[in-house]
Amino acid sequence: MTDAAAYFSHLECSVPCGAGPYDARGRHHLCTCGAPLLARYDLAAARQWPRQSLRDREPSMWRYRELMPVFAGESPVTLGEGFTPLLHARTLGQRLGLPRLYIKDESLNPTNSFKARGQSAAITRAKGLGVVTVSVPSAGNAGNAMAAYAARAGLAAKVFLPRDVKTPFARECVLYGADVTLVDGLITDAARLAAERGGPLGWYDVSTLKEPYRIEGKKTMGYELAEQLDWTYPDWIVYPTGGGTGMVGMWKAFDEMERIGWMTPQRRPRMVSVQATGCQPIVRAFEHGDERAAMWEGAATVADGLRVPRAIGDFLILRAVRESGGTAVAVPDADMVDGMIEIGSTEGVSAAPEGGAALAAIRRLVRDGSIKPDESVVLFNTGGALKYLDAVAGR
Amino acid sequence: MTDAAAYFSHLECSVPCGAGPYDARGRHHLCTCGAPLLARYDLAAARQWPRQSLRDREPSMWRYRELMPVFAGESPVTLGEGFTPLLHARTLGQRLGLPRLYIKDESLNPTNSFKARGQSAAITRAKGLGVVTVSVPSAGNAGNAMAAYAARAGLAAKVFLPRDVKTPFARECVLYGADVTLVDGLITDAARLAAERGGPLGWYDVSTLKEPYRIEGKKTMGYELAEQLDWTYPDWIVYPTGGGTGMVGMWKAFDEMERIGWMTPQRRPRMVSVQATGCQPIVRAFEHGDERAAMWEGAATVADGLRVPRAIGDFLILRAVRESGGTAVAVPDADMVDGMIEIGSTEGVSAAPEGGAALAAIRRLVRDGSIKPDESVVLFNTGGALKYLDAVAGR
Repeated sequence: MTDAAAYFSHLECSVPCGAGPYDARGRHHLCTCGAPLLARYDLAAARQWPRQSLRDREPSMWRYRELMPVFAGESPVTLGEGFTPLLHARTLGQRLGLPRLYIKDESLNPTNSFKARGQSAAITRAKGLGVVTVSVPSAGNAGNAMAAYAARAGLAAKVFLPRDVKTPFARECVLYGADVTLVDGLITDAARLAAERGGPLGWYDVSTLKEPYRIEGKKTMGYELAEQLDWTYPDWIVYPTGGGTGMVGMWKAFDEMERIGWMTPQRRPRMVSVQATGCQPIVRAFEHGDERAAMWEGAATVADGLRVPRAIGDFLILRAVRESGGTAVAVPDADMVDGMIEIGSTEGVSAAPEGGAALAAIRRLVRDGSIKPDESVVLFNTGGALKYLDAVAGR
Repeated sequence: MTDAAAYFSHLECSVPCGAGPYDARGRHHLCTCGAPLLARYDLAAARQWPRQSLRDREPSMWRYRELMPVFAGESPVTLGEGFTPLLHARTLGQRLGLPRLYIKDESLNPTNSFKARGQSAAITRAKGLGVVTVSVPSAGNAGNAMAAYAARAGLAAKVFLPRDVKTPFARECVLYGADVTLVDGLITDAARLAAERGGPLGWYDVSTLKEPYRIEGKKTMGYELAEQLDWTYPDWIVYPTGGGTGMVGMWKAFDEMERIGWMTPQRRPRMVSVQATGCQPIVRAFEHGDERAAMWEGAATVADGLRVPRAIGDFLILRAVRESGGTAVAVPDADMVDGMIEIGSTEGVSAAPEGGAALAAIRRLVRDGSIKPDESVVLFNTGGALKYLDAVAGR
């Protein structure tokens, strides 16, 4: 692994505002303008990296390591995350009238969700930077993943969760030896407290998009989709959106793959951002034609991962949705839970409410004629059902 | 997948008692003598199957499909099970004085445990046989896996669980649309009831080793270990043992790999059977030099997968342990829970109590000098912690 080429070159403002570039070997969070930073690579040089080399690679997201934020000689902090199954959902597809429906099952990641990808990348970089203590505010799964990767790397972990988080999320942190603080309020309040406490102590904050590398882990979902579909794009990607890092990451991946010659520039997938009726800042901004998404007051939903009232990468999410010709859809909680059971009982896949939400969104887009029967659709099941089994009690 | 060679040829008594052979395309459970049947392959012909062909295969257990119970033209019922990570556990190894300690992390399977492998194989065959309804008695995880694969295959599923099973196991079955019956008593009582109810109705019973193909799924753990260790064996395999199908399956895999020329016959791994102090029929039989293991009365342990008072494959487990020069170790529940937390906090791996038990067993074998510091050791983490989080409450 350590003898692969490494094309990671610098960091750049995501706006871009003109500040920077920022040194790839430095410790950075946001741009001086307040926007997220993005990792950049020497893509011209990376054109020498043939996708055929993947056949001898390990089945994890680190198979794409040349375009990941690691330097030559470094070993990633890994638990085998990524390269999750892309399952052809024939039974569910038949119900929906979509013969080409696929489920990208992210529940097969360490800690049962797609958050593993981001934290594997972030903790790899944190370790490389000599960090001792990492902290994160989380709605649930990101904290679990961070705690696991911090343990694997030998770093101390501080996780800040909303006080009303479901019990399994808090307990799983304890399993990995993390220090858990329960905070009155939402993830945004947790973020404030984590920054207050950790700032003076020099904790390394791995809040998504405030930290530049979680998105690099998430973007691998885009590489994988293309590879698993034999270097084609699906017509639609339907993606539950909290912080939206995966959506932005996949859009970045498509760009990179086209620029290194792995994909010919073509019609990219339409990106659908799925949120909860009780917390839909991106949907509202999309419908209003806004560039940024205002804070959603009184956020409430069974899907912890969607209980994100404000996303720092809002403009990047909205940009990806619009450039792709996609849309944004809000789903009520009851439909999400129905969706969990429908995915489980038709395909045997363990789906979080977020996965159920994606199903409800697809059904609506088929009914209103947006998704055509001959189109290929990828339902992102961003995590498993096991931390949400209370939701199916009594069913 | 469907154009690969298929060497599955027949079924044979595991004793062997002399009855049979049994037709590979028939519906069989036990041999007429009451012993489990084993799938057999044309291994002479399989010598033409080069292990180099694996490099282009999907990262699931079906990469070994030529030596799995499928026929040409059949598609397995799959959710992406197997080819789980083999993680080098440096931190934990350092604590134990074992620089070559590895964790085979089976929690990354569908339904969070190694049971997925067995059920993927069993349900593939059941579907091939035209079965409509499948039933299984289970201590927990096997029922979850069976329910998931039955859903994926479109079969009706009947799961029989002990009434005091932890809530998540029962709820996960519901998620997959299975019909759950809670039974007073243990898995052995559940098995009796499942047979009584299902017999007259023609349900297909997928009880481990009463059904001949779950072991074929489990054996892939042996193929994977060899492949992931670059076609060498580890010195020790430390394996939590309930029904023991994985232990017996890996031993079968080593035999097959040697006979098709993938492994030169050599010192095989020492197999360690790990059980619970409160349910240790195999340990007792091993220590007494018995060929069969008597029923363990009053079985009780936090590790549901180890709460198996009698295993139909007892003589096969004991045979593998003895032929390998291994041993059998019982672990108290408190050590298992400590082990879950130690594995989690040192390596970031989500471990069930069964995985914690394996750690406690390794520690004991290092202390008594059985395992030497320079030897390679594989700790089998047969499932994840998520259905067992109550066990870490208050820690």
